[in-house]
Amino acid sequence: MKENRYDDEVFFAKYGEMLRSKNGLKGAGEWPELKKLLPDFHGKRVLDLGCGYGWHCKYAAAHGAAYILGTDISHKMLEIAREKNADEKIKYECKAMEDLDFEEGSFDVVISSLAFHYVKDFAPLVQKIYKWLKKGGDFVFSVEHPVFTAYGSQDWYYDSQGNILHFPVDNYYYEGKRDAIFLGERVTKYHRTLTTYLNTLLDNGFTITHVVEPKPPQELMDIEGMKDEMRRPMMLLVSAKK
Amino acid sequence: MKENRYDDEVFFAKYGEMLRSKNGLKGAGEWPELKKLLPDFHGKRVLDLGCGYGWHCKYAAAHGAAYILGTDISHKMLEIAREKNADEKIKYECKAMEDLDFEEGSFDVVISSLAFHYVKDFAPLVQKIYKWLKKGGDFVFSVEHPVFTAYGSQDWYYDSQGNILHFPVDNYYYEGKRDAIFLGERVTKYHRTLTTYLNTLLDNGFTITHVVEPKPPQELMDIEGMKDEMRRPMMLLVSAKK
Repeated sequence: MKENRYDDEVFFAKYGEMLRSKNGLKGAGEWPELKKLLPDFHGKRVLDLGCGYGWHCKYAAAHGAAYILGTDISHKMLEIAREKNADEKIKYECKAMEDLDFEEGSFDVVISSLAFHYVKDFAPLVQKIYKWLKKGGDFVFSVEHPVFTAYGSQDWYYDSQGNILHFPVDNYYYEGKRDAIFLGERVTKYHRTLTTYLNTLLDNGFTITHVVEPKPPQELMDIEGMKDEMRRPMMLLVSAKK
Repeated sequence: MKENRYDDEVFFAKYGEMLRSKNGLKGAGEWPELKKLLPDFHGKRVLDLGCGYGWHCKYAAAHGAAYILGTDISHKMLEIAREKNADEKIKYECKAMEDLDFEEGSFDVVISSLAFHYVKDFAPLVQKIYKWLKKGGDFVFSVEHPVFTAYGSQDWYYDSQGNILHFPVDNYYYEGKRDAIFLGERVTKYHRTLTTYLNTLLDNGFTITHVVEPKPPQELMDIEGMKDEMRRPMMLLVSAKK
């Protein structure tokens, strides 16, 4: 996550208007499923990579975690996190996740929500996370789904009247940089295949415990566009154990 | 696989013209990757669900398997299997895989190549396979990729000049029956999400060892249309352990 769009004024303002920014975890469609994959936090040392506003850090604190380190590349995000989701057990640190380093076994839990698709190289990061976790530790993350990132634009394919026809997939096996449009702004994301996400974990010693493509939850189905989210997978949630 | 298109004369003739039918494993683009996921067969009891022409049975026999049972719903397929891939260690049986039953721990290895997307209910089958395997046994299978089965037609989306634009995804979370066109004939297949394929294994006690979306191999890249297979994932290979 070396590129940092979140400190750009316009982008940051638009991000602040998203339901997940205003309502926190309740505004995030994938939260009910992600929550099920999280371990018991009691007494645990937790690292949140790309913590944003700090909602997950606060959740871990409220559920008994002993110590939480939330890291993000964006100063502005962390300002909001310190304001909205402060807790004596949480420390927020402004650093690109690629530049972090810790002693072996420093954490019991590593989480990351919708941040890894900003990271160019996944394997070195997974190797480090494996090192930072203690044996038996949990690694839980969400990313944009490879189906969602493959084409690049992250938009539906429309007919001439502007009706959605389907979602386009292309260049699936060509991993790497994509110029996506997110909140009307150009953002660089990295497409990876499902094979890369899962086998990188397996090849580096993790045991996969769950793989979930969250459906839009029933209670959010009235929100504009949410019903269309039954037509394409947008996110991928994975839990694994060291 | 209760519907059996393979005993239909026209369909069967067309199937026989496919590279994978004429050239066996060498003609199957996914074989180099699938081969890597297969366990050591020496002295093993092997079950092949939806064995078709019996290429994988023969491979297991040639690599030391003690006993191989190949099952398929198609009489015609098994006639060819008995002709092309006979071996004293292989027994071919004509039965829908949903109707099979064996004692607990009857097999060391269960394999299945491109057959489960014809099966309506995946979970009961996975439960049975788990039962049939001995502890530590291997389960390796390939299926059509959820991206490939979601829309239904299994065809590219073209412009008015007939050029490929992209591959369409739709109705991803609506699992179930799809009317696909395969070899120019209408075939019923069942779409399942990736979540269903993987979590059904995990929820029923399996440990996932590999998940691979095979790319078209370099040596087949000159075959018509093969280069386009870099643009969409067509198959999903999974290996798991009891």
